[in-house]
Amino acid sequence: MRTVLYSRFMGSKDVLQDAPIELLGCPLDETSSFRGGTKFAPDSIRKASWTIETYSPYLKLDLDENYFVDNGNLDLPQGNLLLSLELIEKAVSEIIGQNKRFIIIGGEHLITLPIIKALKDVYNHIHLIHFDAHCDLRDEYEGQRLSHATVLKRIKELGLADIYQIGIRSGTKEEFQKARIITHPNELLDKIKNNEPVYITFDMDVFDPSLVPGVTTPEPGGLFFPEIISYFKTLSKMHIIGADVVELSPDYDATFVSSICAAKVIREMIMILNYGSV
Amino acid sequence: MRTVLYSRFMGSKDVLQDAPIELLGCPLDETSSFRGGTKFAPDSIRKASWTIETYSPYLKLDLDENYFVDNGNLDLPQGNLLLSLELIEKAVSEIIGQNKRFIIIGGEHLITLPIIKALKDVYNHIHLIHFDAHCDLRDEYEGQRLSHATVLKRIKELGLADIYQIGIRSGTKEEFQKARIITHPNELLDKIKNNEPVYITFDMDVFDPSLVPGVTTPEPGGLFFPEIISYFKTLSKMHIIGADVVELSPDYDATFVSSICAAKVIREMIMILNYGSV
Amino acid sequence: MRTVLYSRFMGSKDVLQDAPIELLGCPLDETSSFRGGTKFAPDSIRKASWTIETYSPYLKLDLDENYFVDNGNLDLPQGNLLLSLELIEKAVSEIIGQNKRFIIIGGEHLITLPIIKALKDVYNHIHLIHFDAHCDLRDEYEGQRLSHATVLKRIKELGLADIYQIGIRSGTKEEFQKARIITHPNELLDKIKNNEPVYITFDMDVFDPSLVPGVTTPEPGGLFFPEIISYFKTLSKMHIIGADVVELSPDYDATFVSSICAAKVIREMIMILNYGSV
Amino acid sequence: MRTVLYSRFMGSKDVLQDAPIELLGCPLDETSSFRGGTKFAPDSIRKASWTIETYSPYLKLDLDENYFVDNGNLDLPQGNLLLSLELIEKAVSEIIGQNKRFIIIGGEHLITLPIIKALKDVYNHIHLIHFDAHCDLRDEYEGQRLSHATVLKRIKELGLADIYQIGIRSGTKEEFQKARIITHPNELLDKIKNNEPVYITFDMDVFDPSLVPGVTTPEPGGLFFPEIISYFKTLSKMHIIGADVVELSPDYDATFVSSICAAKVIREMIMILNYGSV
Amino acid sequence: MRTVLYSRFMGSKDVLQDAPIELLGCPLDETSSFRGGTKFAPDSIRKASWTIETYSPYLKLDLDENYFVDNGNLDLPQGNLLLSLELIEKAVSEIIGQNKRFIIIGGEHLITLPIIKALKDVYNHIHLIHFDAHCDLRDEYEGQRLSHATVLKRIKELGLADIYQIGIRSGTKEEFQKARIITHPNELLDKIKNNEPVYITFDMDVFDPSLVPGVTTPEPGGLFFPEIISYFKTLSKMHIIGADVVELSPDYDATFVSSICAAKVIREMIMILNYGSV
Amino acid sequence: MRTVLYSRFMGSKDVLQDAPIELLGCPLDETSSFRGGTKFAPDSIRKASWTIETYSPYLKLDLDENYFVDNGNLDLPQGNLLLSLELIEKAVSEIIGQNKRFIIIGGEHLITLPIIKALKDVYNHIHLIHFDAHCDLRDEYEGQRLSHATVLKRIKELGLADIYQIGIRSGTKEEFQKARIITHPNELLDKIKNNEPVYITFDMDVFDPSLVPGVTTPEPGGLFFPEIISYFKTLSKMHIIGADVVELSPDYDATFVSSICAAKVIREMIMILNYGSV
Repeated sequence: MRTVLYSRFMGSKDVLQDAPIELLGCPLDETSSFRGGTKFAPDSIRKASWTIETYSPYLKLDLDENYFVDNGNLDLPQGNLLLSLELIEKAVSEIIGQNKRFIIIGGEHLITLPIIKALKDVYNHIHLIHFDAHCDLRDEYEGQRLSHATVLKRIKELGLADIYQIGIRSGTKEEFQKARIITHPNELLDKIKNNEPVYITFDMDVFDPSLVPGVTTPEPGGLFFPEIISYFKTLSKMHIIGADVVELSPDYDATFVSSICAAKVIREMIMILNYGSV
Repeated sequence: MRTVLYSRFMGSKDVLQDAPIELLGCPLDETSSFRGGTKFAPDSIRKASWTIETYSPYLKLDLDENYFVDNGNLDLPQGNLLLSLELIEKAVSEIIGQNKRFIIIGGEHLITLPIIKALKDVYNHIHLIHFDAHCDLRDEYEGQRLSHATVLKRIKELGLADIYQIGIRSGTKEEFQKARIITHPNELLDKIKNNEPVYITFDMDVFDPSLVPGVTTPEPGGLFFPEIISYFKTLSKMHIIGADVVELSPDYDATFVSSICAAKVIREMIMILNYGSV
Repeated sequence: MRTVLYSRFMGSKDVLQDAPIELLGCPLDETSSFRGGTKFAPDSIRKASWTIETYSPYLKLDLDENYFVDNGNLDLPQGNLLLSLELIEKAVSEIIGQNKRFIIIGGEHLITLPIIKALKDVYNHIHLIHFDAHCDLRDEYEGQRLSHATVLKRIKELGLADIYQIGIRSGTKEEFQKARIITHPNELLDKIKNNEPVYITFDMDVFDPSLVPGVTTPEPGGLFFPEIISYFKTLSKMHIIGADVVELSPDYDATFVSSICAAKVIREMIMILNYGSV
Repeated sequence: MRTVLYSRFMGSKDVLQDAPIELLGCPLDETSSFRGGTKFAPDSIRKASWTIETYSPYLKLDLDENYFVDNGNLDLPQGNLLLSLELIEKAVSEIIGQNKRFIIIGGEHLITLPIIKALKDVYNHIHLIHFDAHCDLRDEYEGQRLSHATVLKRIKELGLADIYQIGIRSGTKEEFQKARIITHPNELLDKIKNNEPVYITFDMDVFDPSLVPGVTTPEPGGLFFPEIISYFKTLSKMHIIGADVVELSPDYDATFVSSICAAKVIREMIMILNYGSV
Repeated sequence: MRTVLYSRFMGSKDVLQDAPIELLGCPLDETSSFRGGTKFAPDSIRKASWTIETYSPYLKLDLDENYFVDNGNLDLPQGNLLLSLELIEKAVSEIIGQNKRFIIIGGEHLITLPIIKALKDVYNHIHLIHFDAHCDLRDEYEGQRLSHATVLKRIKELGLADIYQIGIRSGTKEEFQKARIITHPNELLDKIKNNEPVYITFDMDVFDPSLVPGVTTPEPGGLFFPEIISYFKTLSKMHIIGADVVELSPDYDATFVSSICAAKVIREMIMILNYGSV
Repeated sequence: MRTVLYSRFMGSKDVLQDAPIELLGCPLDETSSFRGGTKFAPDSIRKASWTIETYSPYLKLDLDENYFVDNGNLDLPQGNLLLSLELIEKAVSEIIGQNKRFIIIGGEHLITLPIIKALKDVYNHIHLIHFDAHCDLRDEYEGQRLSHATVLKRIKELGLADIYQIGIRSGTKEEFQKARIITHPNELLDKIKNNEPVYITFDMDVFDPSLVPGVTTPEPGGLFFPEIISYFKTLSKMHIIGADVVELSPDYDATFVSSICAAKVIREMIMILNYGSV
């Protein structure tokens, strides 16, 4: 009999050794300050992926021509933040060790910290494209140094990445003073050379909450789909080494549209990863 | 005693023989591929119509000056697709036979096929304005030739209509190659002469899902209300012979705004039907 | 790295050749008369299974001691009812051919028809325990002979099974005249001998809709959890050869409790299948 | 063409002069103290009626054998409480004047006051069966004498009815001292003689809120469906002259089950009205 | 122990005599024509305020530098419209008497009438900035002269204010003829001199319902967040004496984003009140 | 002006030094294994309290005769579990030090651990009445020793309390072997002498999820309201020194009935605390 598992991302191949791109869920859901539920995101996005087409009219590419595997979700020990971060770092190191590119599906934004740590073992310098409503540049949040609200500060301290922030519209005065905000795709072209490695961290709350209400902290005044696509078109010409999509919280997505948006973002990312200037 | 029935569209007259415009619900709900529920659309739109005004500030016309009747819903035999399509064709033929114009409220998009068949008995050629997120131009979908995803292909084969597609953003590579996409109202003015008959098929998913999440397959990146209005202003100068509004699924419309949008679209359509170049 | 896939039922083993019990999703969703969405049930139940324990305090057994595999969902051609029914029959025949017991997760109730057909190839006579709010004994429904409302009538015509109906509270006068309603577990003991093969078809709307609102046609006045458990305790002493759980519609399950109930029902069924009088 | 209007109650006949029973919606929604929305109840119940059968296995009667018409909703001037109450009284008087029995679908509970006033013109004495979670016996509520929380007190003052209260579980100490609470159907048999006229006012919050959450003030600890049916079986032997069903608020009925319960209650009421000791 | 009360607006100081700005909830919820629930708005907005930052990147000001108190909600006698309006007028008079500025959180739009009446005791002339989807200029609505749909007409009759309307897109032909619609912030600069007193009444339905569905009468085609901000930037240079935010209905805000938008509007208003041309 | 704050529990007095009973919210929300959101419970319960009456027909007592204050919510450092537990212990010690009785509103179940620790400073022995669906007797859960799933085990180790468990229906085989399950109120009378101190910990998931779906881990087969009341009647004759109500998660309470149940439980508890055998 021929069976299917809707819980794989649409278009993913059987788990092969040699697929150049790997999807992995990291359902970390520990430090949310307002509402949680990001642990349910990977499977909700997978379900949503089946409602969209494999063909992207934006990039004029088809997912079916892209070899990628969906490796399920990392098994994280709930309540043990430090061990979870270690496991994520290790998993990403493993993927990089196989010379693969990857998309990590969160989970909360803090997962980007161990990912960047793993990248540090291999790269001397990367460009980090940060889509987000919030600066995430605090030194600590509610007394905690490891938090979804401090993750970019912690990453900055690693000294690996130049950070460019897109969609930012919330933070303290201090955070805004330190933020490096991009407001047009062309600014990226000025700053990033063709062959330099680029990593994308994509907080779903960068979208306007009219389109994507299902996030932990919705912030009005965000980006709409066409703006995101215009950034992706620019990024598609760059050397993208990996990406993550974080902070989707399906239980607050009364219309399922937030999950569909995440699925569409990941569809475009897979193509960018494959066709970016290799 | 004076009673009202909220289940009639706001402003509709008593069921008179000689009203020039007729509303009819066609709750066909058979071939949806992801989620269903379009059969509940006509009554939900009727309820929603009572929250808006009869006056359109866009067209500067009032529904109260338009004589139209709301004829309730066609009684379709659930599970019997072919018979349902026949009944729809017959009902539309009957309306045309009385020299009336009409708005059919779906139900799924496949209802447009029998409507166009009925029009074919009377017209040699029409212009078909197709508002939609999806091309609907497949030859078959999941092995089926009669489907909401193939309806435009089937209509094309009838050879009656020139098709212009608005809002399209999802399909296969092949569908996009065959699609005839319009991106500005003025393009319609170039292509359609004043007295030529025009039919409008309006899939509610043409709207961005931030505004209209309550459809069977929401697709981010859609049109907003002012864009639709600008197309309607252009259409108001043409000879519109009929229209349909399809694919609304009220059970997925957590905020009722999708139904309100559909009601507002129908309000404008009634005026266009009445005042279009007769 | 150690990954998990929440979309397997909690406690299921890796897909082994020799596990005595098999779970299979059959997302058939074609003939619903009021609201649909049963195709989403198997994956929703799998997610829900992770919120309950593997241990049953009712049967004093643990799922971890039961070898069963979760084989994902059968790939059904949407819109093609007859072919779908054929595929289900074939899949069940395949499972029986391997001397396995099974639990099929619907999908709508019509899936029970091809399952019983497959059983007919192997068995001369079975007892069919039918949990449901509705008689499902009509000869045709809205002009259709193959429907979730006629399935028990069609099964009766196969002549394989003695049917006992539990929880019935809706139907026509004629259906009630033909129904064979059981109101206490002991009645089953009187009618079924120890080694005779028994099959269970479990329509989730047998539950009171206060507990399980997420079904296609909720019917007040149903059974509560302890009553179901008392039937299961009796069934645990019988020779159960297979079971299905149908008609859950997760999109109408605002609180997720309906899916959790279905998961708990399946947990008990797995134990009954394993420990029933073999 | 054959059209249907789902907004008529299932099984209602065409609006005939001589049907012995009349359904009428009274969407009064003015004095709710916590949450409102009862004005949407009549149409929601009509939609829900199409999910249940016309046959009642409890009373072993079929709706199809009962001639009743559904007269739509009374057109009430929103915001004008006194005029609305007058219009309701007048409408009910009109129905009684035609020697019909009736079921009024609210709207809030205050509608029962003008109904009883209309009955007072015709009857010297009636028995009033009051299903409710709340005593509704306050003299005033938040400074108002006309309120859903004082309606039974106002009715008492009319001096027409002996009141029996079923399901009461909320009120002040003073209200409980004045309440006349019934806890078993047989108590009614003791108190009401066969041919004495009986009126039923049914506040949907008499049900436990697990089954019927969609009311303005849900109160845990209520009645379940079988208990209501056992009261109805007793009432079916009495001379029922009319009934109302009030306080359903569909916007708070996340699962639609509350509306289905109301529809099922009305189905039984129609039969009781027809077959009660005439 | 240190306790907090989330039901105070984020950043509000302890209730001090000398804070220059006061927040006050006025949960009037009496004359809504379609759906109600505005009485729940003040507390929902307070909860939502804790999800946003105290710093405004738009005005580059921080709430923490603004001394304001949150005075809870006015205790209104439900069902007694006239007395409620009196109490609101008195409360606002009291605040003005202390030389404070204020933001009143509705409740329905009718609360603006007593506020303007209170202002009339102190001012000879003000400018009234009216953000709304609806004209609210009817002379009466459903027979009522005091209604959320007539409030601007009643205010106009007071002769105190020049009215400028922003976002209007619904009304009768007559209302549109009388409306004074502004479509760009600069028009305000032309009309209002620096030191003239300005009052803002902000109906949340001015927003597009994709962003703010949780209002009593959602009207497609509205303003988005950046447009509102650009008006607020202009207003920040004026002499703002008070403001209200009305018509939010949290029970219809399935995603909580409507409440967050209201909280963000109020955050900006507090800054405008403090820093406006004093 | 007279203002109210709905965020105080209905009937609570102004914060007085000498009220004998204190309510305190402890919004700890850190170790939930499936879904979270318990931090929102205290304010949701306060809002819900305004929909019920102050009079209890069960205990025939009135809240208005009970002097209790509502002290708002403890300010807990999110993400810092150990410090939060310390703060809770300290706050409870402070209350006990003033010779007050108390009701703590969670938050997750782990808050009971520091409460019992605080009680240990004053008492040598107490009886602990544990209402819950889950045993909570694991030694560790997902590698964590401090968790909502281990809290009763940790409390047991303190050696202060005899534990009686009510409503338990989920756990491992080992937990069930260690559990001490009570199935009738009279069993408590046998075990607890009149003057011995009793503490109640009430996990809202003890209720059947049909009535209370809004909890972190709903478990079918639970208790209904009348059963809880019968336990409370028995407890009302005992010497109750304090109580907590935990694990309500309002974001999953689509109908608000779960919060209303919690409010009603707390109303009864306040009376029991006041009138218990002092």
